[in-house]
Amino acid sequence: MRRNVLEVALDYLAVGIDPEKSTICVQSALQALAELTMLYLNFVTVARLERNPTIKDEIRARGFGRDIPAGFLCYPVAQAADITAFKATVVPVGEDQAPLIEQTNEIVRRINNQIGHNVLVEAEALIPRVGRLPGIDGKAKMSKSQGNAILLEPEAIREAVHRMYTDPNHIRASDPGTVEGNVVFTYLDAFDENEADLAELKTRYRRGGLGDMTVKRRLEAILQGLLAPIRERRAAYAGKPGYVLDVLQEGTKKARAVTQSTLVELRSGLGLFTLD
Amino acid sequence: MRRNVLEVALDYLAVGIDPEKSTICVQSALQALAELTMLYLNFVTVARLERNPTIKDEIRARGFGRDIPAGFLCYPVAQAADITAFKATVVPVGEDQAPLIEQTNEIVRRINNQIGHNVLVEAEALIPRVGRLPGIDGKAKMSKSQGNAILLEPEAIREAVHRMYTDPNHIRASDPGTVEGNVVFTYLDAFDENEADLAELKTRYRRGGLGDMTVKRRLEAILQGLLAPIRERRAAYAGKPGYVLDVLQEGTKKARAVTQSTLVELRSGLGLFTLD
Repeated sequence: MRRNVLEVALDYLAVGIDPEKSTICVQSALQALAELTMLYLNFVTVARLERNPTIKDEIRARGFGRDIPAGFLCYPVAQAADITAFKATVVPVGEDQAPLIEQTNEIVRRINNQIGHNVLVEAEALIPRVGRLPGIDGKAKMSKSQGNAILLEPEAIREAVHRMYTDPNHIRASDPGTVEGNVVFTYLDAFDENEADLAELKTRYRRGGLGDMTVKRRLEAILQGLLAPIRERRAAYAGKPGYVLDVLQEGTKKARAVTQSTLVELRSGLGLFTLD
Repeated sequence: MRRNVLEVALDYLAVGIDPEKSTICVQSALQALAELTMLYLNFVTVARLERNPTIKDEIRARGFGRDIPAGFLCYPVAQAADITAFKATVVPVGEDQAPLIEQTNEIVRRINNQIGHNVLVEAEALIPRVGRLPGIDGKAKMSKSQGNAILLEPEAIREAVHRMYTDPNHIRASDPGTVEGNVVFTYLDAFDENEADLAELKTRYRRGGLGDMTVKRRLEAILQGLLAPIRERRAAYAGKPGYVLDVLQEGTKKARAVTQSTLVELRSGLGLFTLD
């Protein structure tokens, strides 16, 4: 677990999240979140939690049936605590997480209503233009263990793009090809900033006369350019584990103050007894 | 809420709980309990919580149906945290609370099993010889608002015993009377320490020839003797609100250290990442 936390922190720093501008903290070290969750659990019904589509999907996918752990059912409430403790107004999530924001805002409204003024703040989902990227084999989820992910090393990037699923009916360069569901084009849609060139490339691919290798070379160049600075930053930060731990400690300290202050406001609003 | 907390503390001190021997603390000021609850929620299923007979009864009694608050369903898990955070081995509860101890011990076994050694401790229910005392009107629950409770003032005690439900068919002293369900005898069973005398009293009452007033006078004397020191201690402590607050603050500080230490042990046992 310790290693995973540090690896995620390295990823954050590597992609360019700047700890001077953005607080990076360890969620499990913020005790106020557990207490907020416990309070919020009184403002949401079991029936409502069971209607959550994300929970429904996960129950189906994991085969839990009626024997779901209570912590799993209550997880959206813990996430509501994660969001509201910081009085977040915008939460970057995937499209499938929109119901979570709705659930959070329901809790916010109920609690503000109970208190009589707005202590908590409603949040909006920030859903990115590009959804979840598929694995290089075209499967919905990219996974290191399934070998369909793109790792950070130059050779790994080259090989991954080379193995990418395209259009199985596009056998010769001269054949007309399909762009939809073609992983190479899905990635180009996400990362190619030259929209005019990309549009022309698609037209040529559809018409026939454009080989997969040409398109893949274009994508590889873009991905190499995109990932090189991330890889370099990651390597640099990996060599300074003390600094990464400092970032987490500083961020967690800051986050602890914020979350604790929201909790104090909420407890006082709800008329709970506070000793100190 | 503040007032209620202080009133309960006064009751504890009044009945003779000695803060030098027993820690009195404010549960809601112990943040570790919320975090323990959140951890435990992962070790119990929703189906298991719904089978809890206390929860079932309360759902029936309160008419919540499927729309029970999640916090209500999860409450036994929070109680498991209350118990296990102190590594309690004995928990004084009413008979109806025995399933709660069973639920707690199930969580304890699951967590110890997950960790691989015994961090948490199983508890035993300490069920008193006398169960819940009925109201003076014979109803199962005593309630101040229903006017069937015994308050602490001498005149209130006298009046309550005088109004106590006995045997409605025991009209004249010479009539044979019934002891079972007779509130006066229920209270004598609980508080009369002279068993031989009480047994003889019952025999005479059953046979006929013993008036309600005689039995009630005996009970009143016992209750006055029992409640006088409680009333006096309560009045004395009520005059020292600063002392009562000190007791709560000291106790809570002590309890905070104990509960936090259990949490640290548990987190480390479960392999969770700890920053500090």
